[in-house]
Amino acid sequence: MKTDRILVTHGGGGALTRELIEETIAPIFNSELLNKFEDSSLIPATDRLVMTTDSHVVKPLFFPGGDIGRLSISGTVNDIATSGARPLAISVGLIIEEGFSLEDLKIILKSMKDTADEAEVHIITGDTKVVERGKADGIYINTSAVGLLPEDIHLRPANIEPGDAVLITGPIGNHEAAIIAARNELLPDVKISSDCAPLGGLIKKLIDEVPEVKCARDPTRGGVAATLIEIIESSGFGVELDEKEIPVDDDVKSLCDILGMDPLLMANEGKMLIFVPEDRSNRALEVMRKDKYGKNSRKIGFVTDNKKRLVLRTIYGAKRIITMPMGSQLPRIC
Amino acid sequence: MKTDRILVTHGGGGALTRELIEETIAPIFNSELLNKFEDSSLIPATDRLVMTTDSHVVKPLFFPGGDIGRLSISGTVNDIATSGARPLAISVGLIIEEGFSLEDLKIILKSMKDTADEAEVHIITGDTKVVERGKADGIYINTSAVGLLPEDIHLRPANIEPGDAVLITGPIGNHEAAIIAARNELLPDVKISSDCAPLGGLIKKLIDEVPEVKCARDPTRGGVAATLIEIIESSGFGVELDEKEIPVDDDVKSLCDILGMDPLLMANEGKMLIFVPEDRSNRALEVMRKDKYGKNSRKIGFVTDNKKRLVLRTIYGAKRIITMPMGSQLPRIC
Repeated sequence: MKTDRILVTHGGGGALTRELIEETIAPIFNSELLNKFEDSSLIPATDRLVMTTDSHVVKPLFFPGGDIGRLSISGTVNDIATSGARPLAISVGLIIEEGFSLEDLKIILKSMKDTADEAEVHIITGDTKVVERGKADGIYINTSAVGLLPEDIHLRPANIEPGDAVLITGPIGNHEAAIIAARNELLPDVKISSDCAPLGGLIKKLIDEVPEVKCARDPTRGGVAATLIEIIESSGFGVELDEKEIPVDDDVKSLCDILGMDPLLMANEGKMLIFVPEDRSNRALEVMRKDKYGKNSRKIGFVTDNKKRLVLRTIYGAKRIITMPMGSQLPRIC
Repeated sequence: MKTDRILVTHGGGGALTRELIEETIAPIFNSELLNKFEDSSLIPATDRLVMTTDSHVVKPLFFPGGDIGRLSISGTVNDIATSGARPLAISVGLIIEEGFSLEDLKIILKSMKDTADEAEVHIITGDTKVVERGKADGIYINTSAVGLLPEDIHLRPANIEPGDAVLITGPIGNHEAAIIAARNELLPDVKISSDCAPLGGLIKKLIDEVPEVKCARDPTRGGVAATLIEIIESSGFGVELDEKEIPVDDDVKSLCDILGMDPLLMANEGKMLIFVPEDRSNRALEVMRKDKYGKNSRKIGFVTDNKKRLVLRTIYGAKRIITMPMGSQLPRIC
C-alpha cells in the first residue's frame, strides 16, 4: 500500500504492519535475526539466550480480566515462551502522562509484580519518563525480556512438517472482545473477560512431557489467522483449520455476530498455538488441559503441503482460503 | 513531596524521580536488583550478563548533533558500558503517532542502525505500535540491551574508596543546551551540538589498559550533580569537585549565563564519569584522550570520606554543598 504517512493500521499486526517491517524497518536495520520475524530472537554470541520486546498502549488501561500491567508482563513472557525458553529477567520502561493518578500507577505496578511472580520472572531494571498532559493516555509500558532455552529445545516455524497437528490452548477472541465491550457504552450488558495470562508454565510442562513439540506462537494482534499465516510463510507449508473444532465462547460469538467481526482475526493475550507431530497430539492435549490456562485445549487443524496457504474448512464443509488481514479490526488492543 | 498525581518533574532524573522509584515503584516490585538503582542490572542465574532499558521521548526529534534514533542507541549502550560490559544485543520498541512521516521514520531508523554499527551491537528484535494523532509527538522509542561482563570486571559504586580520582570524558551540558537552543526561537544564533554518542568503545579500551577502573556512570538527566549524588549515596562516601577543572564549552557557558542554568545539572548524552585509583588517573586520562569521544578528558575531583556529601570547590576557593536537584531543568530532554 503506497503511503508516505504512518496509518493506524500499520500498528494492527496484519499485512500493513508486515509491510512496514519488511519494506521500511528490516532493510535499514539489515539484521538476519530481525528478518526471521520471530517473537523472540537468539542473542548473538550465545547459543541459548533469547530476547524479546513489546510496547503496550492498550486503551482502556483497566478492562475486565486484566489491565495494562498484567498485559505487559504476560505479552512479553509469552513471546519468550514461544521459543521454548524460560524467562530469566524482564525490564520495565514506563512512559507516564503528567497528571496520571499515583493510585492507578500503584495498581498497575502491583498487577505487573503479581503477574511476574506468577510467571516466575524477575523484574530487574527499569526506566521512567514523563510526558506532558494529553500525551500517552495515562501510561505506555515497554517490557523486554531475556530467556534461556533448555538444552536441545528451540521451537520455531522451521521445525514444522506436513501432517503436524495444530492445537490451541482454548477459546479465541476473548481479549479483543473484552476491549471492544469495555470501550463501547452501547454494550453495557456484555460481560466478556480478557484471557490475558502468562503461559510460560504451560509451555514448560508441555515441553517436559512432550519434547517433540515443534513450534508455539501466541495469536495476539491479527489473531489466529495472521499468526498462522506468518508461521506458514516462514515454514513454506500450509495449514488447514477445521472451523467446527475452533473454540469460541458464546458471548464472544454473539458480539462478533452483532458487530460483523471474525474471531479468527481477533487478538488473544493468553492463548498459544502449538504445532506437534500428529502421533503426540493427544498426549500434548492431555498435558495442556491439566494447566489452568489450557483447560479447553483443542486440536483445530493440521499442516499441509499446500504452499503457504491457510485454508478453513467451514462448518458447511466448504473450503475457504484465508488471507492476511490488513491489520487489527481496532487499534490499541495491546 | 506529597502529591497524588504524576508531575513532569517525576521524569526529570532528580530527587522527585528518585522519590517515585523509592516510594512507589521499588516497594511494589520488591526486587533486590532493582533496589540497587544501577543503570544496568545483572541477570539472575547468570554471572556475567547485564540488562538495561531506556525509553526515549526527546523533543524535538531532530536536533543539532543527533536525533532520537542516535540518542536511543547511545543512551542504552552507554548504560551497558557503565558496568564494564560489552553490548551483545539490543531491542527496539517503536510507539509511532498516526500520520508520522515515513520519510522521517526512515531517517531515524537509519540513524539507529548507524549508531548500532558504530557501537558494534546487533539490533535483534523489535516491536511496532501505532497510537492516534496527537499522542506520542511523532515517535517514542524504547531500547533495551543485554551485555556481557568481561571476566573479573564489574564496575559499580560499591568499588569506590576515598582518594579515588573522578574523571570526565569531556565538557558538560552540551546535550541539554542543544535541546534548549533547538526549542527556543529566541536563540537563533546559538549553535550548540548535542554530545550524543555511544561510549562502549572508549570504556572497553579504558578497561583493557587500566583494569583498575572502579566505576563509570553517564551523567544524563540531572547531570553530573545528580549522577554523582546517586553514586555517593550507594557507596557511602563523598566527592569533592574542583570547579575550575570542570570543562564547559564557551557557548554552553554563555547560554547558561543568559538562562541562569547550572551546567552541573544539565544532561549529557555522550559523557562518562570515571572513578579510578589516583595513581592510575594519569594513565586513564591518556587512554581516554586517544578516543574520539574522550579527547577533552579531565580530572575534576576526588572521593572523600565526607559521608554522602557532594562538595564543589568554587573558582573563588569557597566550598559549596550540592544537593540533589528536584529534577531536570526542562522536560523531555531524552
